[in-house]
Amino acid sequence: MSFVTVSCTEFVDVLASKAPVPGGGGASALVGAVGTALGSMVGNLTVGKKKYADVEADIYAIMDKAAALQKELLRLVDEDAVVFEPLSKAYGIPKDDPNREKIMEDALKAACSVPMDIMRACCKAIELHEELAAKGSALALSDVGVGVIFCKSALMGASLNVFINTKSMTDKAYAAQIEKEADGLLAKYCAQADKIYDAVITRLR
Amino acid sequence: MSFVTVSCTEFVDVLASKAPVPGGGGASALVGAVGTALGSMVGNLTVGKKKYADVEADIYAIMDKAAALQKELLRLVDEDAVVFEPLSKAYGIPKDDPNREKIMEDALKAACSVPMDIMRACCKAIELHEELAAKGSALALSDVGVGVIFCKSALMGASLNVFINTKSMTDKAYAAQIEKEADGLLAKYCAQADKIYDAVITRLR
Repeated sequence: MSFVTVSCTEFVDVLASKAPVPGGGGASALVGAVGTALGSMVGNLTVGKKKYADVEADIYAIMDKAAALQKELLRLVDEDAVVFEPLSKAYGIPKDDPNREKIMEDALKAACSVPMDIMRACCKAIELHEELAAKGSALALSDVGVGVIFCKSALMGASLNVFINTKSMTDKAYAAQIEKEADGLLAKYCAQADKIYDAVITRLR
Repeated sequence: MSFVTVSCTEFVDVLASKAPVPGGGGASALVGAVGTALGSMVGNLTVGKKKYADVEADIYAIMDKAAALQKELLRLVDEDAVVFEPLSKAYGIPKDDPNREKIMEDALKAACSVPMDIMRACCKAIELHEELAAKGSALALSDVGVGVIFCKSALMGASLNVFINTKSMTDKAYAAQIEKEADGLLAKYCAQADKIYDAVITRLR
């Protein structure tokens, strides 16, 4: 089943329930898509305006990238559910089952891969917001700020879904490699998002 | 029309478009609802477990409050569109129209009131997450972190939609009063959300 074809109300209701999916990973992908969509909106409110004719080609290029990221993030809402279900079942395997460790490890690796993809997509979306803050319509400035803070929180939310899984892995080298990439993305892009948000606030108030 | 009865994909698509609604305010209400729903999910994964029998009554009380806040935030997605449309039209009134200032001022006040309600609801949701971090199932710890960071970003997102409107008001005393409340909520609850998130990260890693 797809969680992005149900209504927003239904999505929130099933998220609130004890159903194993969607969880924090899928929710992060949706919030990332919402943040990215706000970037697209800023683009749409900028193009076609005489005042912004000089940057129009750049804005169209940003909008193409944002549309692709938005589509990717919505796909990842469902993909996160696909990889989480086997993990949810693996936790139910009796601890003395000789196959448990291998099944669990594979499920943990799969359940990490999607939140990592969500993180990477959110980082790209934050970069687009940097350009939108500089070139987008001043009338939509607040939306750049909202968009970037949502992409940042989606990045952070997805990272928790990485760390909770790497923590349980027995393959510590693999876990360390994933954590290193996740920490690098968090360090660089949370700071970048904060800078963009602060610049928006300064111009807005 | 309601934006919470359309699919998540449609919501994100119309958000990305140049249609005046939904905008950053409605998107903030949705992200707040998603964050609150994650809190409810943590509650649902905690109740009925022997290990958490001692706190079960508290968790049920949190879940009742979270369900009400989630419903309120979804209502505010649509309410933000209702109050934003008149403002969007007011901006189109010719600058020499003698009725422009009064219409504009009323529209600005209305367009501030809903983001303020979104902010207040997100603050209450952050408080619920504090209790969930302390009493909720350890297995759902990452979801407390994701939920609280989404409520924080929704609080910040809604605040930008307050400030962009108070800035344009001619009634400066009214604007200052709203901004004072907004700044107070941001200062208190962003710090509280960060503290909860940091505590989650510390236990998780």
